[in-house]
Amino acid sequence: MNVFDIVPVKFKEGKLFLLDQSLLPNEERYIEIKTKEDIWNAIYKLQVRGAPAIGVAAAYGVYMSVRDIETEHVDSFKEQFGEIKEYINSARPTAVNLSWALSRMEKILLQSQDKTVNEIKALLFAEAEKIRLEDEAACLAMGEHGLSLLKPGMGILTHCNAGTIATAKYGTCLSPIYLGQQKGYDFKVFADETRPLLQGARLTAWELLKAGVDVTLICDNMASIVMKNGWIDAVVVGCDRMAANGDGANKIGTSGIAILAKEYGIPFYMYVPTSTIDLATPTGDDITIELRDGEEIYKMWYEKEMAPAGVKTYNPSFDVTAAKYITAVITEKGIVYPPYEAGLRQALESK
Amino acid sequence: MNVFDIVPVKFKEGKLFLLDQSLLPNEERYIEIKTKEDIWNAIYKLQVRGAPAIGVAAAYGVYMSVRDIETEHVDSFKEQFGEIKEYINSARPTAVNLSWALSRMEKILLQSQDKTVNEIKALLFAEAEKIRLEDEAACLAMGEHGLSLLKPGMGILTHCNAGTIATAKYGTCLSPIYLGQQKGYDFKVFADETRPLLQGARLTAWELLKAGVDVTLICDNMASIVMKNGWIDAVVVGCDRMAANGDGANKIGTSGIAILAKEYGIPFYMYVPTSTIDLATPTGDDITIELRDGEEIYKMWYEKEMAPAGVKTYNPSFDVTAAKYITAVITEKGIVYPPYEAGLRQALESK
Repeated sequence: MNVFDIVPVKFKEGKLFLLDQSLLPNEERYIEIKTKEDIWNAIYKLQVRGAPAIGVAAAYGVYMSVRDIETEHVDSFKEQFGEIKEYINSARPTAVNLSWALSRMEKILLQSQDKTVNEIKALLFAEAEKIRLEDEAACLAMGEHGLSLLKPGMGILTHCNAGTIATAKYGTCLSPIYLGQQKGYDFKVFADETRPLLQGARLTAWELLKAGVDVTLICDNMASIVMKNGWIDAVVVGCDRMAANGDGANKIGTSGIAILAKEYGIPFYMYVPTSTIDLATPTGDDITIELRDGEEIYKMWYEKEMAPAGVKTYNPSFDVTAAKYITAVITEKGIVYPPYEAGLRQALESK
Repeated sequence: MNVFDIVPVKFKEGKLFLLDQSLLPNEERYIEIKTKEDIWNAIYKLQVRGAPAIGVAAAYGVYMSVRDIETEHVDSFKEQFGEIKEYINSARPTAVNLSWALSRMEKILLQSQDKTVNEIKALLFAEAEKIRLEDEAACLAMGEHGLSLLKPGMGILTHCNAGTIATAKYGTCLSPIYLGQQKGYDFKVFADETRPLLQGARLTAWELLKAGVDVTLICDNMASIVMKNGWIDAVVVGCDRMAANGDGANKIGTSGIAILAKEYGIPFYMYVPTSTIDLATPTGDDITIELRDGEEIYKMWYEKEMAPAGVKTYNPSFDVTAAKYITAVITEKGIVYPPYEAGLRQALESK
């Protein structure tokens, strides 16, 4: 089975399905999403994850949640839509794509108040489809831009999963690897396992193996030695929210890898669809970092609890990589180099 | 129960027991060591680990292995001793304390060839006791020297376990934390979980909690964010082998933390009993790095395998921290500052 046959968000015969990514790599199972609680839970529990995929899932999810509202009054529909939107938006705080997608859906509603509720519902569905297709196109474009920075045979380190199942299709930072693979580029990819939730081991290694890419799994703390060994020519990572100044929040551990890459003289590329750029957030200090339950560290996945009872934990899901450590930002509109403030604005405004 | 009541190597009524550290924190069980195979396995399987504790265990272990040799001929005893020594020495390659302790034992034998086999056996036992007591004294001294670099209330990051159970007693880099605790220093310690074998979560957190120290468990990839948050005033780590130029091999991940500490302007202290300094090894490039089975990464501890079948892995147990990232080396003879070449030699030669 081709890796691209597996999509994280699937709408089929009027039903919405999400690939339950918390079960990978042991099980490839889809769950059905019918209500606002279903979509909230799926996002909160990371059954769907990856900033772009969260955006796509939220767009379809809000549509599913309002589809069966029984009213002919646009005002009443609008009020209920607003409540549902706020509720879904509360599932996770860091990835901007969640609020971005929900706002796009709301905008469609606000522009269509002269229409019937049924017409509005149809427009909302069309907008969800559009968000999905635009993300797919953006990922393909990022792959092409990103590939121009890479050469055949390169060793590439990645962290967490910004692959096809983190997006509508292709992935952000894994997109150039897939495109390179099709061209026989023979990359040697090193995947950080990405503690505590092991997205690198469970998802990235799984995706790359399915695509036939040469992938080696390492623990997060081995990034330094593989760089020192001379095995890494470039680091590629995704992004959950990029502030106006180019500081980028991504999976916990990304900032450390960026610092190591700088020290070892290795380029560090962050893949950021324009839907992930948040000009309303001035710097990384203004990004809310999601804190999760400490049990993810010492209990989840394990046969036994792997820390003594009563130990305190600190479990941030993300960290912020300062713009100064980012060699280039790859968007679907092109590659942005420092200084980022102007370049990101330009990328967002360009067609 | 006081943390110091738990010793990793216990000789009692003619029997040798090792705390099985692979079972912690869920079980506190001692295993008996009778043969050379027993001690080899215990070292190889990390039932005893930590460079100084490996040295102490190997000294008693080689004694146990030769105690029952039935010969009155010193030459025959010597030959069998030599074979057993080489065998035990092959259990793990990186920590120099293993070969160091075995060489000390051999030296006793070589100096005593005019004695009877029984007398030699008694001298070997006395030497093992001496190695243990010297290590205990060295750890206490390292604690006192190290404490002079720390201030009450400091936030301290540590990696892996260089605590009391990694040594005869007190630990190397945790020794100053225990001494500070007794003086009411109120340190806030952050313990990296230390993948893949979780020595930080299982051992360091367990030790520090038992001692009443304020400890917070984090994943290895969270070192950067806790430093950026301003929570870390010093990094303390142990060492498995320090080359003549001050490059130090320690648990995988240490080199990355040292680079982060430098970037964030945080002092990085490596605790190195002189038994761990290896002047015969010129630089870190000359240190053999132990590679272990990839199953430790994706299978060990887990309920299910946490990576897709067939994935390649790279699983080095150690990495080398370049001398330029080490703010100071704490030995039992005192604190050594850069340039290390001369300082380490002096520490080794001083009484």
